[in-house]
Amino acid sequence: MRLSRYFLPVLKENPAEAQIVSHRLMLRAGLIRQASAGIYSWLPLGFKVLRRLEEIVHEEQQRAGHMPMLMPTIQSAELWKESGRYEDYGQEMLRITDRHKRDMLYGPTNEELITDIFRNAVNSYKDLPLTLYHIQWKFRDEIRPRFGVMRGREFLMKDGYNFDLTMEDALHAYNRHMVTYLRTYERMGLKAIPMRADGGPIGGDYTHEFLVLAETGESEVFYDSAVTDLTLGDRDIDFDDVDQCRAIMEEFTTPYARTDETHDEALFGAIPEERRRTARGIEVGQIFYFGTKYSEPMGATVVTENAERVPVHMGSHGIGVSRLVGALIEANHDEKGIIWPEGVAPFPVGIVNLKQGDAGTDDVCESLYGQLIKAGLDPLYDDRNERAGSKFATMDLIGCPWRITVGPRGIKNGVVEVTSRRTGESEEMSAEAAIAKLTTLLADR
Amino acid sequence: MRLSRYFLPVLKENPAEAQIVSHRLMLRAGLIRQASAGIYSWLPLGFKVLRRLEEIVHEEQQRAGHMPMLMPTIQSAELWKESGRYEDYGQEMLRITDRHKRDMLYGPTNEELITDIFRNAVNSYKDLPLTLYHIQWKFRDEIRPRFGVMRGREFLMKDGYNFDLTMEDALHAYNRHMVTYLRTYERMGLKAIPMRADGGPIGGDYTHEFLVLAETGESEVFYDSAVTDLTLGDRDIDFDDVDQCRAIMEEFTTPYARTDETHDEALFGAIPEERRRTARGIEVGQIFYFGTKYSEPMGATVVTENAERVPVHMGSHGIGVSRLVGALIEANHDEKGIIWPEGVAPFPVGIVNLKQGDAGTDDVCESLYGQLIKAGLDPLYDDRNERAGSKFATMDLIGCPWRITVGPRGIKNGVVEVTSRRTGESEEMSAEAAIAKLTTLLADR
Repeated sequence: MRLSRYFLPVLKENPAEAQIVSHRLMLRAGLIRQASAGIYSWLPLGFKVLRRLEEIVHEEQQRAGHMPMLMPTIQSAELWKESGRYEDYGQEMLRITDRHKRDMLYGPTNEELITDIFRNAVNSYKDLPLTLYHIQWKFRDEIRPRFGVMRGREFLMKDGYNFDLTMEDALHAYNRHMVTYLRTYERMGLKAIPMRADGGPIGGDYTHEFLVLAETGESEVFYDSAVTDLTLGDRDIDFDDVDQCRAIMEEFTTPYARTDETHDEALFGAIPEERRRTARGIEVGQIFYFGTKYSEPMGATVVTENAERVPVHMGSHGIGVSRLVGALIEANHDEKGIIWPEGVAPFPVGIVNLKQGDAGTDDVCESLYGQLIKAGLDPLYDDRNERAGSKFATMDLIGCPWRITVGPRGIKNGVVEVTSRRTGESEEMSAEAAIAKLTTLLADR
Repeated sequence: MRLSRYFLPVLKENPAEAQIVSHRLMLRAGLIRQASAGIYSWLPLGFKVLRRLEEIVHEEQQRAGHMPMLMPTIQSAELWKESGRYEDYGQEMLRITDRHKRDMLYGPTNEELITDIFRNAVNSYKDLPLTLYHIQWKFRDEIRPRFGVMRGREFLMKDGYNFDLTMEDALHAYNRHMVTYLRTYERMGLKAIPMRADGGPIGGDYTHEFLVLAETGESEVFYDSAVTDLTLGDRDIDFDDVDQCRAIMEEFTTPYARTDETHDEALFGAIPEERRRTARGIEVGQIFYFGTKYSEPMGATVVTENAERVPVHMGSHGIGVSRLVGALIEANHDEKGIIWPEGVAPFPVGIVNLKQGDAGTDDVCESLYGQLIKAGLDPLYDDRNERAGSKFATMDLIGCPWRITVGPRGIKNGVVEVTSRRTGESEEMSAEAAIAKLTTLLADR
């Protein structure tokens, strides 16, 4: 993309209404713009990040055999009355009356709707196991929306639902989801720790939240530092392998890690002192096993091999996709702006032309731009007539992980400069070497 | 995808509530399920088609330099009061009151919101031309929703908005959009004819609707048959070339083609009789130039080279993405089911194993399945223990353009059968030849 043709309305000043750094940077870097309280428009740069996160979520869910679909945003109140949650949900549910005076609502979650789809379509144990999920906008009418997309009213969420014949199968689905979530966050460059959680309005006998450590987190968390050393890396995972998924779940949940809701002072005290940590965390996902809580009252049953009719065992699983953009920035920024992890950067490489209009620098920039596009690296070329300082400031603010700087002096020596946004380190090399280096570094993206 | 693991709840019976063929087939083939009146859940197969259409729209818009973004579904009523459309819109607008008693609404279109974003971000003629678009769910509270996704209440639409300094520039944007729309429909395998239209509530001095001919269309249309012979094909298009875009617009809009709203009996009568056609059409898109209708009252202005402040010239452009799924089926089906054009098929190739569990057929099917995946052809393998007749019926119903049938007799002769869903013609060949043939045929997809 050529910056001269891109819609990137960056702000010079810090917006007064933004209290936390991610909100400030998302406004300043032209990622979002508030439409009304707690409701945002995603400008091209922000939309690109959001779309990238969606892609990663889709890929990791489908890798585990989960089926993408899409439920609508507006639901009838009928199903919620059937499950008994219509009254429970309180004022956070956006209630709507349509022109025929029917009670509708903007879905805050989809247990009822998916259970209804299941009970109408599935009748036999042979069609299990089944996991359906979607990535859809939700609405929660927060009394005091704040912190930008971190606590907005309209937000994008992946929510998935598993249907299994037995508790044992459903617990495999639980573990399998934990593995997919760990993979998802790792690919995004985030360290998200699974912590024992509380069921809340969804309910659930087993539930873990995934928290990203950040000073601005809404939850106080307590953990054994051993948990932050764990990574999945590129190990080969067979999502049908019950033992392997259980072993990974155990590996990641054995070290103590809890939020203040489930914190146990005695267990925490038993951790060697040098590994005891207290911090703040941002919740970016949660998984639940809740058995027959919805299937029983709503009649979501299957016929077993022995011709018995039994309610299915269910769980649900959520990833806060729009909120993740904020969490990523909270965990990856400095005083100059955002520092995108390579896996989620909207533009992984920026090109800065120090002397726009100079035949020499223009030529090298155009050639680099063309070759990077060909290599699939989606570069952002700052081809505007601006001072070098202003171009550097923009690249730093919007957080391109790699910058290639092209100036007349370097060209005389046959080199360009490659700079890492994260470390600030620069290296001079030929344009060809720069392309080879970045192609290798960004190969996994 | 293995059908044994896919969620494809096909219906044997014709659903009583469905009056038109696309609605019937979308329910029967497990593409959608009604959630409430005029509101649908998209099951995995339907979601896959919807996503494919979205991709094509994104690719064609970005090819022309238009910027993707995303505006929210819920809007504040304030901006609509400012433009004067809040009262005009009537009962089709879904009006909502939030917990703080503020007037909100579910956006039926986004002229106000995008103009607000523009006026806050852009100040200079140097930032023009600019076209922003998004693909987002809309809501229109139809009094009598019907015909499935063709006249639903919650529907997915691409809507885009151009901002230009002069009327001349804005008319280039108009022509450029016409070209992108023609390309989009052609890639989807649809013949959509641009017809002179009426401005309606959007307003507009210049406007064309794009109509797909189908017996169940809601509009009566009148046209010169010469218009249906026109195709863009693979001609090279430079979207910055004002003359080329205007020439294409003229080429496609010179033959008479109008809906009953703008029909002119005298002009129609002047067409040679053998080329005069009356038919019905489904509207799948519309483009508008409306000048300063929104920019003037809402103060969306830029400073010109001569330091004057002038309102920008605007247009808007819509493609009914969810409705297109219905239109595609209306135009592509037979008594057995859907016949997807190759460009939009959820699974371009189906594999039918005539004797599941037979070592010979299983081996050949597994090998074909693996190789087709490797070739990027996204096959659907019917690996269920079902009769051949039932497997053929499912493939015909869901409309895979190509079917490879593998049976014990063919294997003895070293051949599989390749069948075209559209023509019904079959050909025997080796498995290798089948892969080579389909890879070539589907290369453009």
